[in-house]
Amino acid sequence: MIYDLLIQQVTVVDPGPEGVMVRAEQDVLIQGSRIVAVQPTGQVDPTSAARVIRGEGMVAMPGLINTHAHAAMVLFRGSAEDVPIEEWFNDYIWAMETNLTPEDIYWGAMLAAAEMIESGITTVADHYFEMDRVAEAFVAAGLRAHLAWAMFGQNPREELDRTAAFAARWHGAAEDRIRVWMGPHAPYTCPYEFLQEVAREARRLGLGVHIHVSETTEQVQTSLQRYSVTPIQLLERAGLMGGPLLCAHAAHATSEDIALMAAHRVGVAHCPKTFLKLAAGIAPVIAMRQAGIPVGLGTDGVASNNTLDLWEQMRLTALLQKHERRDARALPLHEALTMATWDGARALGEEERLGRLAPGYLADLILVRLDGAHVQPVHRVEAALVYAVRASDVDTVIVNGKVLMEGRRLLTLDKDEILRQVRARADRLIQRAHGRRLQTYRSQ
Amino acid sequence: MIYDLLIQQVTVVDPGPEGVMVRAEQDVLIQGSRIVAVQPTGQVDPTSAARVIRGEGMVAMPGLINTHAHAAMVLFRGSAEDVPIEEWFNDYIWAMETNLTPEDIYWGAMLAAAEMIESGITTVADHYFEMDRVAEAFVAAGLRAHLAWAMFGQNPREELDRTAAFAARWHGAAEDRIRVWMGPHAPYTCPYEFLQEVAREARRLGLGVHIHVSETTEQVQTSLQRYSVTPIQLLERAGLMGGPLLCAHAAHATSEDIALMAAHRVGVAHCPKTFLKLAAGIAPVIAMRQAGIPVGLGTDGVASNNTLDLWEQMRLTALLQKHERRDARALPLHEALTMATWDGARALGEEERLGRLAPGYLADLILVRLDGAHVQPVHRVEAALVYAVRASDVDTVIVNGKVLMEGRRLLTLDKDEILRQVRARADRLIQRAHGRRLQTYRSQ
Repeated sequence: MIYDLLIQQVTVVDPGPEGVMVRAEQDVLIQGSRIVAVQPTGQVDPTSAARVIRGEGMVAMPGLINTHAHAAMVLFRGSAEDVPIEEWFNDYIWAMETNLTPEDIYWGAMLAAAEMIESGITTVADHYFEMDRVAEAFVAAGLRAHLAWAMFGQNPREELDRTAAFAARWHGAAEDRIRVWMGPHAPYTCPYEFLQEVAREARRLGLGVHIHVSETTEQVQTSLQRYSVTPIQLLERAGLMGGPLLCAHAAHATSEDIALMAAHRVGVAHCPKTFLKLAAGIAPVIAMRQAGIPVGLGTDGVASNNTLDLWEQMRLTALLQKHERRDARALPLHEALTMATWDGARALGEEERLGRLAPGYLADLILVRLDGAHVQPVHRVEAALVYAVRASDVDTVIVNGKVLMEGRRLLTLDKDEILRQVRARADRLIQRAHGRRLQTYRSQ
Repeated sequence: MIYDLLIQQVTVVDPGPEGVMVRAEQDVLIQGSRIVAVQPTGQVDPTSAARVIRGEGMVAMPGLINTHAHAAMVLFRGSAEDVPIEEWFNDYIWAMETNLTPEDIYWGAMLAAAEMIESGITTVADHYFEMDRVAEAFVAAGLRAHLAWAMFGQNPREELDRTAAFAARWHGAAEDRIRVWMGPHAPYTCPYEFLQEVAREARRLGLGVHIHVSETTEQVQTSLQRYSVTPIQLLERAGLMGGPLLCAHAAHATSEDIALMAAHRVGVAHCPKTFLKLAAGIAPVIAMRQAGIPVGLGTDGVASNNTLDLWEQMRLTALLQKHERRDARALPLHEALTMATWDGARALGEEERLGRLAPGYLADLILVRLDGAHVQPVHRVEAALVYAVRASDVDTVIVNGKVLMEGRRLLTLDKDEILRQVRARADRLIQRAHGRRLQTYRSQ
């Protein structure tokens, strides 16, 4: 056998620096964890591949890259609805999160892994607690993950040591499917001095930093009053732009902030559904893109977003930029597709190996059915993918050359057992009568 | 047999004037076309029903009501992307629509029927051409439909006579599943005198009027310049508020317009995806609701909306009202669910028999699975339905007591034949080199 996997006669969609290439009737050849060739169908003998997947009627494209999530929060799905951000944090999320055990987080991450694979996500940048258990879950599921253990700076030395130890165990593990980032929560929750320590420690450990920033106009105002700079400028002042930095949200980035992020090649994770739902405002995505900032898409946590569906985030991103700018030409199809894939890889510093369906790239790809009544007829493949396809149209998911789902059947996870475990925990996890809270949010 | 159909042990969701009732472990009993009882499981002997559907783990709720569509436009899916409204009409839609034969429209309506049933829509208010063929398709599919034959007033007598003859053939047909409305296109395309004639003819025939209005700020400005009143006020001046009136969009209704519509009990069909995609602005839905206007949801045509998915419209409606008003409490779960069901029935003047799951109402209902990895755990059923469920979670669809889909299998339609017919027509339909056009859009 020359090849490990041959995907036969598929329509290939490849986003990259020159836009999105769409080519019908292609064969995709995979050896080990890599794509080795993409070529017109029929040039290779199927018997030269150990495994053949027929791709007729389907699109093959890079797996979706979820640049910001809190996977285990699936456990809180639908438990904090129609409330503003302050109440959402203080009365619901940070109260409910005190109920979580490491075992709860493991099963939450397993359910999230099932949901992400079923919806075509192959890489996730996750930011949460008890990240050893999350890493175990994602490795078992076969996902690729960039993991950050959340820190508030309440016990600085302990929190920094915990991340250092976590990185020693997991950074580069599972054939380099796992990478570790440092995870200070946000400039509005962490002391400034702690952010400075995180910057020094990140340089020492050679890790990137994944943080929330500029989610509301009030956060920007408070930062200006307290520090005389915006939250994003504060990150720079703390030294956090000296290495890889991934900013979740940055919804209220100013034009100075955008120039600063572009100059330091900061990545942004855009999570539109959370921001609509919490009424927090929408990031200036087009201005960021024009400045050269890699803006990926994220699902955020399910307690605000309700699902881990990156197709919905892609669609919302395009629709909202058109709406906010009152310009139907804004954020066209190929840009939306690129944001969900290659731009996500760029935001994570993975653009040399992820986010494209091309020879030399890692074999992280998905097959998507286009034969549904809600997708036909297909006058334009890109339009089908951005505006018609649903997560349930994802047929096959491959990560690092390994098939994780085929014909919508999960091959690495026992979904029945996961659902049984999650249901058994659900009621206990949303109790709030204890009055405990992880942290306190102050909007001013 | 006492009952025709028993749905056993299901969670019932019933939207109505007092909000949304959610009750677990219910049996729903159907005789002929009506719901005759909704009661706790176990009180009725299953052998007293001719057919039993087990509803464990599912929600039973009223079928979704699509208050504005152009069903056959599924034929143009994805063919006019990233273009402003003037170009969209003049260079794409009205050029491509000259290619349509009655047979094309029939197969387009059949594909739309398949897509709507698969996504849980049981009633559609459709506005298009060759409506005899659309009626045939929807009757065969088993849907309920309010049909309007589009008129531009280019040949007034001929157009009015065509609708009168169409109404004579179809109004109240198929066990009253079909109702006919008059369909003048819009105040920006129809001459004012024609709108007056339509108003007189509607009164004479006893029909309602379904029209597009106030889609852009330019349309409002042009109307003010030409007639000294807004487009909505022009409808009133033309006499169109003397009987049932269904206004699609009304995105730029002023506060005076809203008061006028409320006073005349005008229904509004809100289609958010189209309005985001064409960057035309979002209707003041909350102000309309507060004034007492019944605001239903619509998919509009697939040439702008790309799918016929009312779940997506429901979610977008709630998210966008929160966003536009910067208020996370705005348009809460129960209001979103009511808009997609009972408010749609109210907008169509059907609130006495449609849009609720309660004894005496027509048996138009759907069963929705909640067991997906993207829906579990279910801390709150309403949140699952508004923010997590996908169209693909609709399991069973019943209209007028007849099962149209069970276990996602369509029982009235041959989807393979429909897709074959549509694909064979697709390429011809998007030709534009002929230079013909149905009508011309002028933004000023």
